[in-house]
Amino acid sequence: MKYSVIYPKTRKEDPKTVVSPGTKLLIRGGFMEQLSSGLWTLSILSLLIKRKVEEIIRDEMNKSGAVEAEFPILQPKELWEESGRWSKYIEAEIAFRLKDRKSLEYFLAPTAEEVVTTFAKKHLRSYKNLPSNIFQINTKFRDEIRPRQGLIRGREFIMKDAYSFDENEQTMGVTYNKMSDTYDSIFKRCGLNFIKVEADSGSIGGNNSAEFMALTDIGEDTLLFCPECNYGGNQEKATAYFNYPKEELVDLIELETPDIKTVEELVNFTKIPPEKMLKTIILEADNIPVIVSLRGDLEISEVKLANLLGAKVIKNASPEVVNKVTNAPVGFAGPIGLYQKTEYQYFFDKSAENLSNFLCGCNKKDLHPINVNFERDLPKPEKYHDISKAVLGQNCSACEKGVLKTLQGVEIGHIFQLGQVYSKPMKAVFINREGREELFWMGCYGIGVSRIIQTIAEQHYDSKGIIWPISISPFQIMILPANSKVHLNDSLELYNKLKEKGFNVLVDDTDTRLGEKFINAELLGVPLQIIVGKLWEENKAFEIKWRNTEKYNSDFFSIKKENSLPSGEIKADDLMGMLDILF
Amino acid sequence: MKYSVIYPKTRKEDPKTVVSPGTKLLIRGGFMEQLSSGLWTLSILSLLIKRKVEEIIRDEMNKSGAVEAEFPILQPKELWEESGRWSKYIEAEIAFRLKDRKSLEYFLAPTAEEVVTTFAKKHLRSYKNLPSNIFQINTKFRDEIRPRQGLIRGREFIMKDAYSFDENEQTMGVTYNKMSDTYDSIFKRCGLNFIKVEADSGSIGGNNSAEFMALTDIGEDTLLFCPECNYGGNQEKATAYFNYPKEELVDLIELETPDIKTVEELVNFTKIPPEKMLKTIILEADNIPVIVSLRGDLEISEVKLANLLGAKVIKNASPEVVNKVTNAPVGFAGPIGLYQKTEYQYFFDKSAENLSNFLCGCNKKDLHPINVNFERDLPKPEKYHDISKAVLGQNCSACEKGVLKTLQGVEIGHIFQLGQVYSKPMKAVFINREGREELFWMGCYGIGVSRIIQTIAEQHYDSKGIIWPISISPFQIMILPANSKVHLNDSLELYNKLKEKGFNVLVDDTDTRLGEKFINAELLGVPLQIIVGKLWEENKAFEIKWRNTEKYNSDFFSIKKENSLPSGEIKADDLMGMLDILF
Repeated sequence: MKYSVIYPKTRKEDPKTVVSPGTKLLIRGGFMEQLSSGLWTLSILSLLIKRKVEEIIRDEMNKSGAVEAEFPILQPKELWEESGRWSKYIEAEIAFRLKDRKSLEYFLAPTAEEVVTTFAKKHLRSYKNLPSNIFQINTKFRDEIRPRQGLIRGREFIMKDAYSFDENEQTMGVTYNKMSDTYDSIFKRCGLNFIKVEADSGSIGGNNSAEFMALTDIGEDTLLFCPECNYGGNQEKATAYFNYPKEELVDLIELETPDIKTVEELVNFTKIPPEKMLKTIILEADNIPVIVSLRGDLEISEVKLANLLGAKVIKNASPEVVNKVTNAPVGFAGPIGLYQKTEYQYFFDKSAENLSNFLCGCNKKDLHPINVNFERDLPKPEKYHDISKAVLGQNCSACEKGVLKTLQGVEIGHIFQLGQVYSKPMKAVFINREGREELFWMGCYGIGVSRIIQTIAEQHYDSKGIIWPISISPFQIMILPANSKVHLNDSLELYNKLKEKGFNVLVDDTDTRLGEKFINAELLGVPLQIIVGKLWEENKAFEIKWRNTEKYNSDFFSIKKENSLPSGEIKADDLMGMLDILF
Repeated sequence: MKYSVIYPKTRKEDPKTVVSPGTKLLIRGGFMEQLSSGLWTLSILSLLIKRKVEEIIRDEMNKSGAVEAEFPILQPKELWEESGRWSKYIEAEIAFRLKDRKSLEYFLAPTAEEVVTTFAKKHLRSYKNLPSNIFQINTKFRDEIRPRQGLIRGREFIMKDAYSFDENEQTMGVTYNKMSDTYDSIFKRCGLNFIKVEADSGSIGGNNSAEFMALTDIGEDTLLFCPECNYGGNQEKATAYFNYPKEELVDLIELETPDIKTVEELVNFTKIPPEKMLKTIILEADNIPVIVSLRGDLEISEVKLANLLGAKVIKNASPEVVNKVTNAPVGFAGPIGLYQKTEYQYFFDKSAENLSNFLCGCNKKDLHPINVNFERDLPKPEKYHDISKAVLGQNCSACEKGVLKTLQGVEIGHIFQLGQVYSKPMKAVFINREGREELFWMGCYGIGVSRIIQTIAEQHYDSKGIIWPISISPFQIMILPANSKVHLNDSLELYNKLKEKGFNVLVDDTDTRLGEKFINAELLGVPLQIIVGKLWEENKAFEIKWRNTEKYNSDFFSIKKENSLPSGEIKADDLMGMLDILF
């Protein structure tokens, strides 16, 4: 392409209200522009990137045996009522909805489980049609509370969504694992630095789900990651391993703690570290009181607790409820005298297992026993649950050795084992090997296509602009005439020659000085720059320059197994041969 | 691809409520399926076609110098208010609209003049940036009163829309003509049989517009077409040429016509043909009375009249108004005594020019003069206007010789010279060569991508199914194992070999008899069938068969200048060479 016809042009100044480096550089490079909150116009530059990402996704999905289709964006209400999600999504205000001229209601596709399950129900009639995995790459919509960070959290975006149908739980697992491998290949080919983590299934449902998280400084999610075994999870879902050294039991002392209630106050007052405390919290799960005890330094994961209870809304109990449950004011709840006696559900976190000589509440005002021990001072809990949020420095639950690190990540993919969560309410059945109707075993698999464009930018840039990975760069080569007038025709000739040979080429045919052209080229982030100037006049040669030699050296090494990239002067006659090898 | 994984499968029976052959065959072939009124799911088969159509469009648009981009589907209300179209579209109930969680309103893009003009205003600051033509291929929405005929009139569809910005009226015309040529190339490459006709600009605005109409039996529009000079127009817009032989003037007779009012009644009563009558109609244009006289056999084109007057709503006047304007009851209006005397606007249709010895009303009850002539019996009109609908058999206004034929057409493209219709209300200016601000001269250009898929089907089919043109067929070749078990492996081997060579191949790997495979292959409409069977076993040869020899003979002749397509037996060793030449 000729740069003269591309808009928006690059700009020198950072946009004002924007924070992430990727958003800044995508705007400055003219890749995109905001129309309205969370609504972005893509220029040809990002459109070319988008198409390359889509091609990679399509190629890998096809390889996995999935079949593409395209479902309507307007989704009739009745399908969402069948699955039971219409009212849930209305309540959560996630989806855009509208009425047609006949007052029939629709969602603008936020996801497509209902639509695709309806399709499968009609066409996958027998186990002979299974497994089947159907995907589309299409526009999706979410009425975000706070659209932010450019394409990372927009209100309209491109998503690849796939839906698999299997005959039993085991083959569902096989499909799920295949998708996991497919996602690995896709994100690698896009040049992304990512990890796979355990995740919560949220509004999609099902039990088993994993997120693929691109690691960036501006990540929306906090992840825990074990460098020993590569286990990872988002903070709401990651599990830690607790192992305490055995201690001699010390005598229990009833400590008076006048008006001292919080862990922080207790630490200050007693000098006992919070790791030696067991705090007890009264919550309400869908308005029913629940009691949780966990180590003093940890926080409850509401997601884990909600999943454990199958509850929709978790909140802290009011002082009145605390008083009713514990017979004490807020700040003095504890297992002593409450566990086993209470009529309410009581859960101990895994961090409480084998905890010894700890401080806790005993449901009496201004009193906290210390050196408390299970069995001796109160009954040992029957079971421990994973309810606390994992944090930096805890031991990894997978290898029990590694120390968890925290990372910032952006979710670029999410895979779910749905089981029969949708097929059941939607009565989506096939005829199984025994000739009987059976509900589909489903999975679903999303990739944020728009998000990937920006995530790549967040991971590949320097002070001058974005440095696109070769696999998804809008162009492979950018031609810069040293003098806009003198070298323009020769530049255009080279441009046409390279285009004919099938290379993706951009030529800067604007009437600007070479210095400015270089600044633009850095902002645009095309891997290879070819300068048509003095060398051409004197020697029929070009100067070639990599946008970032270090990056492309390593990119090419991994692909082509070459030793080092050429740079500096290259004879016109040798150019084509070199490019053929490189691209 | 393997046919076993494609859904929906072909079906034997025609869908019940569907009328057009294209819709029937697209459904029966498993190309698409209705989710809800006007909302269609595309299977991989039509998705592959769609992608080919898009590639042709993209290629030709790029060649024309237009630059692609992608604008949001959600379009904020304020932009539509700027152009003044928000309330118009609300009134007409054309667009889907919705509110976000902050109660801000949006249209789901029915078209994108406002959004792209806003973009241009920001980036095309100088005449140096012009001309600029920006296009996108994206989903559009229309809340149709009666969605029908599959993809021809859906509520959600893919459209290519382009918007051009020029520095003056003359260069706007140049861009418009270039787009017209581009559209010609696009539709030809899609294998469509189409004509270009004069059209009304409708809700888009502007003065000059042309439609590209695919000729089909199920056409939604009636077109007039001149076989002599290829002039064409849709019925609302096409103009005819009126030329009457000179006649001797005959004496006027005042004929009593008791209670005889309509043209039909007058013909019966007087035996005078309607072509020798001048009928006069009182209408109301935006509630203001208007008088029109035209030849007795013709109808007023409300579109032409509305454009002439710049009026929004045209309707017949009530009897009270007729009475007030003509001083006579309905049925007796005429120019005599009314033209020049009246305070209302009076228009004569071109069909009245040089009409002689005609019958007309004279605004007196039960009286119609015959052998009326202008100049002698009433003043000659100062001007004649094109107000009547053109009809079959009239003379062509372009060559004045040809006789207009009527055709049925589906609009597949529409190009508009918008002038400053949008740039004016939206204050979209650039700095012109004199250094002054000037409003953009705009054009806009649409192509119905989804519609094209189906229109091709409407034009290319036989009793067995669709016969896809080579340029847009989802596959070039379909392999049929004669025996599903015996010949499957060899068929798959051939399939892999052809795929490796870059051909688009479908293999029918289902467990069905050859007869059924043939029926499916005809429904799927892939140009070339290769049968792996007896010839393979005996002779290492294949049987090859064209979906429709006549059609592909002519397709290939025009592309490859060969003489005749091979068919029957071909040796395995010769196959690849033959395919290389053909595809």
